[in-house]
Amino acid sequence: MSTSENTPFNGVASSTIVRATIVQASTVYNDTPATLEKANKFIVEAASKGSELVVFPEAFIGGYPRGFRFGLGVGVHNEEGRDEFRKYHASAIKVPGPEVEKLAELAGKNNVYLVMGAIEKDGYTLYCTALFFSPQGQFLGKHRKLMPTSLERCIWGQGDGSTIPVYDTPIGKLGAAICWENRMPLYRTALYAKGIELYCAPTADGSKEWQSSMLHIAIEGGCFVLSACQFCLRKDFPDHPDYLFTDWYDDKEPDSIVSQGGSVIISPLGQVLAGPNFESEGLITADLDLGDVARAKLYFDSVGHYSRPDVLHLTVNEHPKKPVTFISKVEKAEDDSNK
Amino acid sequence: MSTSENTPFNGVASSTIVRATIVQASTVYNDTPATLEKANKFIVEAASKGSELVVFPEAFIGGYPRGFRFGLGVGVHNEEGRDEFRKYHASAIKVPGPEVEKLAELAGKNNVYLVMGAIEKDGYTLYCTALFFSPQGQFLGKHRKLMPTSLERCIWGQGDGSTIPVYDTPIGKLGAAICWENRMPLYRTALYAKGIELYCAPTADGSKEWQSSMLHIAIEGGCFVLSACQFCLRKDFPDHPDYLFTDWYDDKEPDSIVSQGGSVIISPLGQVLAGPNFESEGLITADLDLGDVARAKLYFDSVGHYSRPDVLHLTVNEHPKKPVTFISKVEKAEDDSNK
Amino acid sequence: MSTSENTPFNGVASSTIVRATIVQASTVYNDTPATLEKANKFIVEAASKGSELVVFPEAFIGGYPRGFRFGLGVGVHNEEGRDEFRKYHASAIKVPGPEVEKLAELAGKNNVYLVMGAIEKDGYTLYCTALFFSPQGQFLGKHRKLMPTSLERCIWGQGDGSTIPVYDTPIGKLGAAICWENRMPLYRTALYAKGIELYCAPTADGSKEWQSSMLHIAIEGGCFVLSACQFCLRKDFPDHPDYLFTDWYDDKEPDSIVSQGGSVIISPLGQVLAGPNFESEGLITADLDLGDVARAKLYFDSVGHYSRPDVLHLTVNEHPKKPVTFISKVEKAEDDSNK
Amino acid sequence: MSTSENTPFNGVASSTIVRATIVQASTVYNDTPATLEKANKFIVEAASKGSELVVFPEAFIGGYPRGFRFGLGVGVHNEEGRDEFRKYHASAIKVPGPEVEKLAELAGKNNVYLVMGAIEKDGYTLYCTALFFSPQGQFLGKHRKLMPTSLERCIWGQGDGSTIPVYDTPIGKLGAAICWENRMPLYRTALYAKGIELYCAPTADGSKEWQSSMLHIAIEGGCFVLSACQFCLRKDFPDHPDYLFTDWYDDKEPDSIVSQGGSVIISPLGQVLAGPNFESEGLITADLDLGDVARAKLYFDSVGHYSRPDVLHLTVNEHPKKPVTFISKVEKAEDDSNK
Amino acid sequence: MSTSENTPFNGVASSTIVRATIVQASTVYNDTPATLEKANKFIVEAASKGSELVVFPEAFIGGYPRGFRFGLGVGVHNEEGRDEFRKYHASAIKVPGPEVEKLAELAGKNNVYLVMGAIEKDGYTLYCTALFFSPQGQFLGKHRKLMPTSLERCIWGQGDGSTIPVYDTPIGKLGAAICWENRMPLYRTALYAKGIELYCAPTADGSKEWQSSMLHIAIEGGCFVLSACQFCLRKDFPDHPDYLFTDWYDDKEPDSIVSQGGSVIISPLGQVLAGPNFESEGLITADLDLGDVARAKLYFDSVGHYSRPDVLHLTVNEHPKKPVTFISKVEKAEDDSNK
Amino acid sequence: MSTSENTPFNGVASSTIVRATIVQASTVYNDTPATLEKANKFIVEAASKGSELVVFPEAFIGGYPRGFRFGLGVGVHNEEGRDEFRKYHASAIKVPGPEVEKLAELAGKNNVYLVMGAIEKDGYTLYCTALFFSPQGQFLGKHRKLMPTSLERCIWGQGDGSTIPVYDTPIGKLGAAICWENRMPLYRTALYAKGIELYCAPTADGSKEWQSSMLHIAIEGGCFVLSACQFCLRKDFPDHPDYLFTDWYDDKEPDSIVSQGGSVIISPLGQVLAGPNFESEGLITADLDLGDVARAKLYFDSVGHYSRPDVLHLTVNEHPKKPVTFISKVEKAEDDSNK
Repeated sequence: MSTSENTPFNGVASSTIVRATIVQASTVYNDTPATLEKANKFIVEAASKGSELVVFPEAFIGGYPRGFRFGLGVGVHNEEGRDEFRKYHASAIKVPGPEVEKLAELAGKNNVYLVMGAIEKDGYTLYCTALFFSPQGQFLGKHRKLMPTSLERCIWGQGDGSTIPVYDTPIGKLGAAICWENRMPLYRTALYAKGIELYCAPTADGSKEWQSSMLHIAIEGGCFVLSACQFCLRKDFPDHPDYLFTDWYDDKEPDSIVSQGGSVIISPLGQVLAGPNFESEGLITADLDLGDVARAKLYFDSVGHYSRPDVLHLTVNEHPKKPVTFISKVEKAEDDSNK
Repeated sequence: MSTSENTPFNGVASSTIVRATIVQASTVYNDTPATLEKANKFIVEAASKGSELVVFPEAFIGGYPRGFRFGLGVGVHNEEGRDEFRKYHASAIKVPGPEVEKLAELAGKNNVYLVMGAIEKDGYTLYCTALFFSPQGQFLGKHRKLMPTSLERCIWGQGDGSTIPVYDTPIGKLGAAICWENRMPLYRTALYAKGIELYCAPTADGSKEWQSSMLHIAIEGGCFVLSACQFCLRKDFPDHPDYLFTDWYDDKEPDSIVSQGGSVIISPLGQVLAGPNFESEGLITADLDLGDVARAKLYFDSVGHYSRPDVLHLTVNEHPKKPVTFISKVEKAEDDSNK
Repeated sequence: MSTSENTPFNGVASSTIVRATIVQASTVYNDTPATLEKANKFIVEAASKGSELVVFPEAFIGGYPRGFRFGLGVGVHNEEGRDEFRKYHASAIKVPGPEVEKLAELAGKNNVYLVMGAIEKDGYTLYCTALFFSPQGQFLGKHRKLMPTSLERCIWGQGDGSTIPVYDTPIGKLGAAICWENRMPLYRTALYAKGIELYCAPTADGSKEWQSSMLHIAIEGGCFVLSACQFCLRKDFPDHPDYLFTDWYDDKEPDSIVSQGGSVIISPLGQVLAGPNFESEGLITADLDLGDVARAKLYFDSVGHYSRPDVLHLTVNEHPKKPVTFISKVEKAEDDSNK
Repeated sequence: MSTSENTPFNGVASSTIVRATIVQASTVYNDTPATLEKANKFIVEAASKGSELVVFPEAFIGGYPRGFRFGLGVGVHNEEGRDEFRKYHASAIKVPGPEVEKLAELAGKNNVYLVMGAIEKDGYTLYCTALFFSPQGQFLGKHRKLMPTSLERCIWGQGDGSTIPVYDTPIGKLGAAICWENRMPLYRTALYAKGIELYCAPTADGSKEWQSSMLHIAIEGGCFVLSACQFCLRKDFPDHPDYLFTDWYDDKEPDSIVSQGGSVIISPLGQVLAGPNFESEGLITADLDLGDVARAKLYFDSVGHYSRPDVLHLTVNEHPKKPVTFISKVEKAEDDSNK
Repeated sequence: MSTSENTPFNGVASSTIVRATIVQASTVYNDTPATLEKANKFIVEAASKGSELVVFPEAFIGGYPRGFRFGLGVGVHNEEGRDEFRKYHASAIKVPGPEVEKLAELAGKNNVYLVMGAIEKDGYTLYCTALFFSPQGQFLGKHRKLMPTSLERCIWGQGDGSTIPVYDTPIGKLGAAICWENRMPLYRTALYAKGIELYCAPTADGSKEWQSSMLHIAIEGGCFVLSACQFCLRKDFPDHPDYLFTDWYDDKEPDSIVSQGGSVIISPLGQVLAGPNFESEGLITADLDLGDVARAKLYFDSVGHYSRPDVLHLTVNEHPKKPVTFISKVEKAEDDSNK
Repeated sequence: MSTSENTPFNGVASSTIVRATIVQASTVYNDTPATLEKANKFIVEAASKGSELVVFPEAFIGGYPRGFRFGLGVGVHNEEGRDEFRKYHASAIKVPGPEVEKLAELAGKNNVYLVMGAIEKDGYTLYCTALFFSPQGQFLGKHRKLMPTSLERCIWGQGDGSTIPVYDTPIGKLGAAICWENRMPLYRTALYAKGIELYCAPTADGSKEWQSSMLHIAIEGGCFVLSACQFCLRKDFPDHPDYLFTDWYDDKEPDSIVSQGGSVIISPLGQVLAGPNFESEGLITADLDLGDVARAKLYFDSVGHYSRPDVLHLTVNEHPKKPVTFISKVEKAEDDSNK
């Protein structure tokens, strides 16, 4: 369904409504094929409800190894941690690659836009990535998280400016910020400047404070925010004695909640349309009135009438950052990128 | 028809005469296709009279929501105002875009220079813009109003120095100042310095004082001033009870005059050549003797012999002002657009 | 009391505690001397409780004319609106000027840092300004709001980059963002980059959503947020029939709440330390443990370890923006003021 | 009487009213002592009516030799023209000098601010100057016309940026633009930026178009405009057969009107408060409500909220321009002047 | 032919002789193409005599409207004067432009340095300009008269310091001072300081006193002076009854001399080498012994051994003076042109 | 007699006439008392004719040793030259000193302004000086020649900027340039800037070319030029065989003319009022109509309306230049002068 933005010869169009679903569920740990199958099940369900957009949590494919330390302390490490990383690396996927093709197929079959959190491997460095697919069954591209948080920095690399996409789709402009990237004001501003309307926030943060940030971003960005977080019990994780879970529980019973979810959909006017769900796996679905973007931007448009480019100006370097460039190829753009 | 400026090997050329028409008419509110059709009708009529230049009022496309408050007071707003803005945003046009292509086609078919007031949308911020078209059916470029007036600031953004064009055309140097930009002495001086000869002033100000300003500018700038203002009755506006019309009338009858026009054409010597018309929709047409520019500048040339650059020096920053710049793309186009 | 930053030979210093008070109260409308007297009363009370920092709401001096329209609609205005503005202009203060001197004296007498919201007049343009004073009775400087919101744009001008101070005081680094400036991610980032620890947010926004933004900012910025909002009843405003109050009430009884306050103090860890108070005038006081800044920044520092300057770079232009510069005089003062 | 600008502790001051008088009269040609006596008579009369400000036309002292050609054609001149210039030079005054002292005395005796148009001689170059005097009997300073018009350039030199005063007086900020300087948008902007409220326009232009410019300036500048023009009959000029009077009359009878006056006082809101008088010598008097400045600037302030300093910036060089500087004397100001 | 300056390994070189021709002739009034044709004829003739340098009078192209008043008196003007200016403006040329290209071609074809007086138009302000061309058929640059004389100030603007070229050519250092610029001691000194050897003085002054100034300058500057003045009869001017010719004749017969020429060539030693011719159109030709420069400077060198820089120091500001600068464009060309 | 410049309350004063006399006579060589007596005789004669100003040639006192070589060749000298210098030094006078007192007395007795050329000794360096005296019998001051010419440099030192006086006297502004100083355009400009009206030019240059320079200066400076040159025969010089006289004669007969005079008085309009006399000793007298200064400056004023201080600016350093400064004295001004 097309927004009025794309209608030739504008008139007094009635607002466009888009149905969107967040999948709040856990990775099948260390089993990527099973995780893909689980994804399939939820996508089918969402599509059956008429959803045009389905958003999965951070690291749904590959997994978010909450509480695990990979044997690391400052200045120390051990064999076991190394081996655990070897397994984690094995669960990650190449982009592009067969899993990506599979996901594209799922999006096409179910006629939905799909945003999927995944652990991407590029050589032996992992990235925390969001993948984008179209209802036409195409892989659109990816966003790599720019800055991992805390211990994540020991297992994931940093993305760069070349993967900050916002796709101009018939259901609105679509992009993503992963987990605490949502706390980065300059990164959010880059997305706003690209016109983001469907702001996907795959995350691993299930805190109460997260809800405030999501509400703030919806207002600050004048966009719909779709925050997707895994809901995981202790038993969803590998049975490893060293896992450390301290956040919202004391025991280590199999049904203890380790990641409490909190997936939520909020409108540009700051209205919570669906969620947050802190209790179970499941779908969070809402109808988004795209006219709310205009309604909200009447008062505030951080990259339009409410900006002060003469005082505050953000530069976004979208050139890829690679440590080595081979200049035998004609890659003029990339050749310039690190200067 | 060419001015002597462009004649190779100057001689005692007889003066060049250019016929110009102002269209004084109302937007078809909330119906941009119908507004374009109405524009077409007037352009055809003007061309049939031999006009080479046709100038429309401020916000002819998109509309000037006179008297409407969008639910705003200081620090307060409401649902209805938001929804009105959504509709207003829907009537605005993208530049470039299909409506701009249609207008270029109209200019080409009728063999006229066309200056059209329009509400432009760039994302969700609106701009009050003047569009320029050539008899060859080309979109030449645009001028975005630099500073909206009073409540306009709540619905329109601010233009920048990258859209201050003056086009050197065979019928004279053509540019525009919109509404109270005409009161900005530094902006006018920028236009004078670019050599403006056909100074178009699309406006929404139909006051008697406006006539004094137009006469003053013609003399100050040594240029022809073509001020185009909408003529609107109450029934031309949406039937909304909250419209506030206080300027020139008391009642709210359908035929009450809400915007009284006052379109006028004045020569560089301060002679009123046509108009002002305060009574009806219609065309205001005059023959402009381009030789009057030289006749006037004998005595006064604010950017030539009557300037004092050693004492008074204006700097015009023509760089585009955007809150965010993405440096991966080659973005030279806008910066170069007025060279 | 000194922060650990200023302790020579740092060891395992116990954290520094600073007592801070927000004054949630209404302007005495159209009576600046009485407003100053009211300020005095609250400052004395806060100081008597041991507060070292006192923060007042936006526009406390001069007033926030909530709901008033100054007779404005799009393209229309009237005599009464003009006269209301004349009165509003008369209530505003010059900076520096006698009222500023009086405030400095109050800060000195009560030995507090004072942040005061005021309407400043510079010629005939008004600015929404935050004034800073030291316990030594000195006027430190000011911040002018960069971008007024909606109808505010019809009565206030825009500040520039020359008044974005963050003062390095013994009780922490002190600065301010006024009302919806708090929604501007680039402005906030500028304050973060200056090291702000005591982030004052004088505001006129008493909505529930505002609380989410304050919490988000405390976490995003790793700073204490002190949001001060007026609490006003209908009777605190002039008895003018055209005042429009639509947000949180329907009637216009003298005791109807027109501005509901919601002043709040939040720690860098996202803990609400005091407030929000939505019910009455009064003081909101909390003890700030400055050690919380470091505690929070371990995980997130938007202008430090969590930034990506190779991808995202903000430029802040701190030069004053004046339409006219007279080069005979040495005008370095303002430019140097925040260095 | 003091404006609210100068009141300590602003409140809702009622507007300040200032009575101002323009003297519309002719020079006593070639007789400076008699001209001063005539000035005295009018100042006494204006003061007796309660005026606090008295404004005289351009060149009242020294005379405006309307229609005279000083024997000049392009590349030609003659003996008689030279001798006429010698006489004209003899009627001009030195500043400071005895005539200036006399005028200061008149201002003091009558307790008025006095703005006097005069022909100043500095060596053998003449300047068209406006002199300012205070009710305390002091000569405040002068403004030299920056650019003479047309044939005036053959008899007058050009002023510079060192004489562009705006005096901050208890009755408002006072300055002047002489004759077609009023057409110079950059010069006017310099005056606006200095905060001019009482904009005096001594002139020799009695045309109808002049009225439009005065009205425009009042609105553009948000200031009171006081335009003073001489009213002269043929017999007020020397009986010289070569005088050329072509503007508003055909015959050369003694009572033919040669300069028709048109002195006028206009408010910042564009209201004509007194005049124009096109019929006789005499006083034009009006009461100026200084509150009108704020009333007008609500909507438009060309050097405040309606400026775009990031796009349009005027630099005013106030250094004196002298062809030769002698550095033996301690003349610090002049020593710096040409750097 | 090279000066000894350019001879490698100087010895007792014999002096260099340069043949130079002044064209003393009248503009074909109001007919620029015919004037160019006439120039062509004289250049061919001069070249055929072996001249390497050809100098034309002031305003040869565009014309010097001697005796015309453009309807001007002090404070008065008329329709006819305006129209005359329009025609005069039409005869002026743009620089660069087609006429300049034509002149470059003529210089190249005839293998001469060419100095041509012309009326230049820049927008609607005219300048009295000297154009320089090389034997290679290149336009070298221009000098705009800094200060017009008397009534010229009503029709011409003022040049600035950016067009004070002295070209270092193989036949000597070449520059120009136009008409009464020759009376400006500081301007002459600027030329001397640039090393001028071939001092061209296109003029409209045919008086006897002019001869004294030319002789003085040759001695003062230690340079060859080539003064070129038009020789015009009454019939060379338009047949307009208002032309005023008072200098050297009484009648207005077609063959009355209106501009008597007086073109002359003088050596640095004060010897009159050719001319003055006060009787007819024609060529004035002389052989210049460049060794005379050294011969003269033994005794006097105003910018060398005979200067007193510790006492008398001239500063020349070569920056262009424009009332408005557009900073989007790179405008270095003019500023650099004489370096 | 006073110029109109000094008349309080200017009117149409008739022009002021001043009678001036040049004394064209020879020094009594090597006999200063006799020279003073000869001066007395001429002053009495001039005064008896009604002269108010008497001007003597360069070096009248002390003598101009025309043709003598003081035994000098490049790198060579001899005993006799040394002894001749000793004699020449003995004829020079101290300023002040008894001869100066005597001259003051003569001026007072005869009620004239007196300008006297003299050789001044300061220690053992000689200066070529002009001395000024008032009718009140006072020594006003002196001008030391800034730059001697050619071999003069072997016997005279260089003056500095501290002796460039122009005296504002009742008969006009009086100053002097000596001999080829008159060729120095910057020095002349310094005098013009001081307002010189009676430009005295004591000289030893009796050439025909000198007349051109004098005429040029009168026009360039808009001043009266009074050029005084000695008329000397061979017998007026010491009878020394080595005197070399090559300029205007071949023989060495006692009555051969060695210095042919050529004293002349020229008006600002370029009219030769008296002289030149190339034939004898004697007085040259003329009546100067001071009104001619204004008559001339109508068209040209090199330091007023015809200057371009923004382009061409002369700095004159009037500080005395001494090789040694003794800082024990409080001479702050001089102490600073050479920094």
